[in-house]
Amino acid sequence: METLTSEKIAAKGYGASGNLIGGETLKLMEFERDAPKDNEVLIEVLYCGVCHSDLHQVANDWKNTLYPCVPGHEVIGHITYAGSAVTKFKVGDTVGVGCMINSCKSCSACHEGEEQFCERPQGPTMTYNGYFVADGSGYNTFGGYSNNLVVREDFVLNIPQTLDASKAAPILCAGITTYSPLKHWNVKVGDKVAVVGIGGLGHMGVMIAKAMGAEVTAITTKEEKRDVALQLGADNVIISENEEEMKQYEKYFNFILVTIPDPFDVTPYISLMRRRGSLVTVGLLAPYKEPLNNMEIASQARSVGGSLIGGIAETQEVLDFCAEHNILPHVEMINIEEINDAYEKMQDEDVRFRYVIDMQSLK
Amino acid sequence: METLTSEKIAAKGYGASGNLIGGETLKLMEFERDAPKDNEVLIEVLYCGVCHSDLHQVANDWKNTLYPCVPGHEVIGHITYAGSAVTKFKVGDTVGVGCMINSCKSCSACHEGEEQFCERPQGPTMTYNGYFVADGSGYNTFGGYSNNLVVREDFVLNIPQTLDASKAAPILCAGITTYSPLKHWNVKVGDKVAVVGIGGLGHMGVMIAKAMGAEVTAITTKEEKRDVALQLGADNVIISENEEEMKQYEKYFNFILVTIPDPFDVTPYISLMRRRGSLVTVGLLAPYKEPLNNMEIASQARSVGGSLIGGIAETQEVLDFCAEHNILPHVEMINIEEINDAYEKMQDEDVRFRYVIDMQSLK
Repeated sequence: METLTSEKIAAKGYGASGNLIGGETLKLMEFERDAPKDNEVLIEVLYCGVCHSDLHQVANDWKNTLYPCVPGHEVIGHITYAGSAVTKFKVGDTVGVGCMINSCKSCSACHEGEEQFCERPQGPTMTYNGYFVADGSGYNTFGGYSNNLVVREDFVLNIPQTLDASKAAPILCAGITTYSPLKHWNVKVGDKVAVVGIGGLGHMGVMIAKAMGAEVTAITTKEEKRDVALQLGADNVIISENEEEMKQYEKYFNFILVTIPDPFDVTPYISLMRRRGSLVTVGLLAPYKEPLNNMEIASQARSVGGSLIGGIAETQEVLDFCAEHNILPHVEMINIEEINDAYEKMQDEDVRFRYVIDMQSLK
Repeated sequence: METLTSEKIAAKGYGASGNLIGGETLKLMEFERDAPKDNEVLIEVLYCGVCHSDLHQVANDWKNTLYPCVPGHEVIGHITYAGSAVTKFKVGDTVGVGCMINSCKSCSACHEGEEQFCERPQGPTMTYNGYFVADGSGYNTFGGYSNNLVVREDFVLNIPQTLDASKAAPILCAGITTYSPLKHWNVKVGDKVAVVGIGGLGHMGVMIAKAMGAEVTAITTKEEKRDVALQLGADNVIISENEEEMKQYEKYFNFILVTIPDPFDVTPYISLMRRRGSLVTVGLLAPYKEPLNNMEIASQARSVGGSLIGGIAETQEVLDFCAEHNILPHVEMINIEEINDAYEKMQDEDVRFRYVIDMQSLK
């Protein structure tokens, strides 16, 4: 076993310096991480998924970015060092890391397995962009576009042997983000579920809802996604701009999962919910374009909710669920030098359906 | 038993002719009702509650008013005639009628006891304003500001003997409208519930939620409602314009019931919901003032829903619940000639908490 004597360990990765003038691109940078504590592991990153949040964070869209910003929170790797108090993992294990690397583990949210809602003022420690505290006492963390990562063992996920490790990374964010609301809103066999937006999140949502036994309808703006949505397992496809198709599905769905990452008008989707149906938006962390019309909501006792990733136990659950149901994200593998091109293509929605970086390309 | 031979029966009541120019007031008018069918009863109206919806409907705020418009859907009366097929009620019974007098009774909503969502194109037959069909094939019905009412027996409620009939009328709309969401969103003993808007609906919401075992906080714009809210049983009161008080209750409530009848900004109430909390708006049948911010919604997996009255079995349930828990609406009794003054006072929110018309004053 490797021994670590220094308090810092060297790392390198691709990040943004914070000089956004002129459209900054991600560049190779060297940085340090805190060495693993007794309850932490050091991971050699093998694969890292590219999430739409990475773009938002790099561009400071949420006004909370700490620079330098090294994104990446869909990480698959090997453990290369385990702290002395680590019991659940050992060197050599293939593991995953999602959006969080730590939390207080003592508040009611953490106790209930919802570490993503950790009630410390600063919330959980996110895998990148550290934690943000208004008084400036937060610190930065650096994500998985890197050669290594240090994580508290409670936030490390087991990757089932039957999952292809080169494709599993997106389960750690896109997978849990869609699985969690489907579970919490109690989607069950025979339910009519719509998934709006067939991208990184949406393609996972279609496969997971289908595996849960729902009748799944994919809703997309793009005619060219009709066939791929059917190939993913969707029973039906609606092109959202086709008013005729939309009208056919009025009051039809028990549950609508919306994965659109940018502000949109939710109104056309409200009418698709049946009595006591729910719509949950997971991609958008901003206001909708138009106010909700409570006439439309109340007249069928509908609900509009939101959801944010999921807890650690639930993330393990979705990994095991995907292994059991042979669900794998559809990925396009890239080298780290291609990351800036990949960002551009994602903004043009030109990806089927998730880029995954082969981090061996960093060497 | 009275026998009815004519196909029409005479009725009189207070209504609006539809000449809204110059601010029409309600006037005494005579009209006819269809005589009761075999499965219908004729009711002598004793008391009729005055709901905020009555104002909206008279003023055609929802662009679907059929004139003449005789409002009133919180009706207490005696049965004076029962059709030959009526089995559940007999002449002399003290009964109630809420917002509906008929529905298809064959769709899935009706089968599931949610007649308010009856899936016929025209929905249920409302107690007044008939049913509205876009092609003009609907017909008008006349409500409880009247000496009599004809109702299908399946839509007649039993008024428990222990309920004071002179005060019970508002349970038939304000009561069921607040009880139904508290039940469907599963409010239980110890939950932290806020009721926003302490008027006709809200004062029922406070009393019902309290009787369900919740810790109840009343939220009102008016300092002068603080004491009455406490008298209704609220554990706490927040004045919504007091930012300090609002801030103290951030992430506090499991459930927020909003009874504000006119467009408002829901944003300040979103932050009061705890993790996985729900906010349900029952008074408003129009758009909110501002778009929902899904950052606020998703960051705590919150939901915003709406609810509309309740089914008939559930309306009986709330009547029985109120009898069991000694809950009675706080009413101000008026004579029918005072109805136009009452409307003005309601628009000024000058009522504690519901006007009920003593329909004997019509004679």
